[in-house]
Amino acid sequence: MKRKRLRSHCPINFGLESFADKWSLLIVRDIIFRGKTTYGEFLKSEEGFATNILATRLTHLEEEGILEKRVNPDDARKNQYWLSEKGLDLVPMLFEMILWSSKYDPKSEARRITKLVEQIRKDNRKISHKIMERLRKGLPIFPEYLD
Amino acid sequence: MKRKRLRSHCPINFGLESFADKWSLLIVRDIIFRGKTTYGEFLKSEEGFATNILATRLTHLEEEGILEKRVNPDDARKNQYWLSEKGLDLVPMLFEMILWSSKYDPKSEARRITKLVEQIRKDNRKISHKIMERLRKGLPIFPEYLD
Repeated sequence: MKRKRLRSHCPINFGLESFADKWSLLIVRDIIFRGKTTYGEFLKSEEGFATNILATRLTHLEEEGILEKRVNPDDARKNQYWLSEKGLDLVPMLFEMILWSSKYDPKSEARRITKLVEQIRKDNRKISHKIMERLRKGLPIFPEYLD
Repeated sequence: MKRKRLRSHCPINFGLESFADKWSLLIVRDIIFRGKTTYGEFLKSEEGFATNILATRLTHLEEEGILEKRVNPDDARKNQYWLSEKGLDLVPMLFEMILWSSKYDPKSEARRITKLVEQIRKDNRKISHKIMERLRKGLPIFPEYLD
C-alpha cells in the first residue's frame, strides 16, 4: 500500500483522503450492494463512470488497501475486485449515509428497502457485522433485507 | 434550496452528490468539531482551502440546505454559517468515519480523543444526539469528551 503524505491526521480528513471522492464510494457501493466485481460491471452503473475515472479510482482504492485485486477464476483476463477488511469496515458509515438519504431524499431508493433501513436505525453495528460476514463469504446482502 | 437533477436516487449517490466532496465535508467538520462559523475561520484550516474552493463549497452547502447563513451579530459584514437540522444529521456518519480512521491511521488525531471514540463505538446514536443537542445551542462539543 502506498503511503502518501496526508494534509492532516484529523480523522475526518483521513477518511476523505482515503475514499471520499464520489466515484470511489460508488465503486464500494457497487461491490457491497450489487455484488459487482469486475471493471465491465462497474462501467454499467447508472451514474455513468467515464472509463478513465473508473480506472484511476480502482487503482487508488487498491493502493489505499480498500480493494484487493484477484484473478477471476472463470476468465484470467478479467480481474476481480473485492473489499479488504479495511474496505468492509466502511459498511457502518455507508449505512449511516443511507439513513440520512432516506430522510432527506423524497425519491430515495432507500424507501424501497425499509426493512434494512429500519434495522440500521435500530442497531447499525449489529446489522453491519451480519452483512460484512456475508460479504466475506461472497454472499449477496439481499434478498433477506428486501421488502 | 435548489433542486438539481440527480444521477440516481440511490441513497449512497444522493449523499455523495449532496455533501461528499472533500472540501465540503471539511467545512462541516470545522463547524462541528472546531466551533468555526465564518469564512475567515474556515480559511485558516490546516488542510489549506483555496479561497475560490471555499466560496463555492459554502454556496453549495447552503443550496443543499445543509448550512444556513446568518448575519453575525457582532459584525454585519461577516456572515456566520450554521448547520441546519439536515447538516446536524450528518453527525452519526462523521462519527463512523472517525471510528474507521482511528482504526486505520496509525497517526490519527482520533487517538487523542479516546473517550469520544469509545462512546461512539458503544452507542453512536446516543452520543450523536447528545452532541447535536449541544450544537443546536451553540455550545462546543468539547471539553467533556476530551481526555
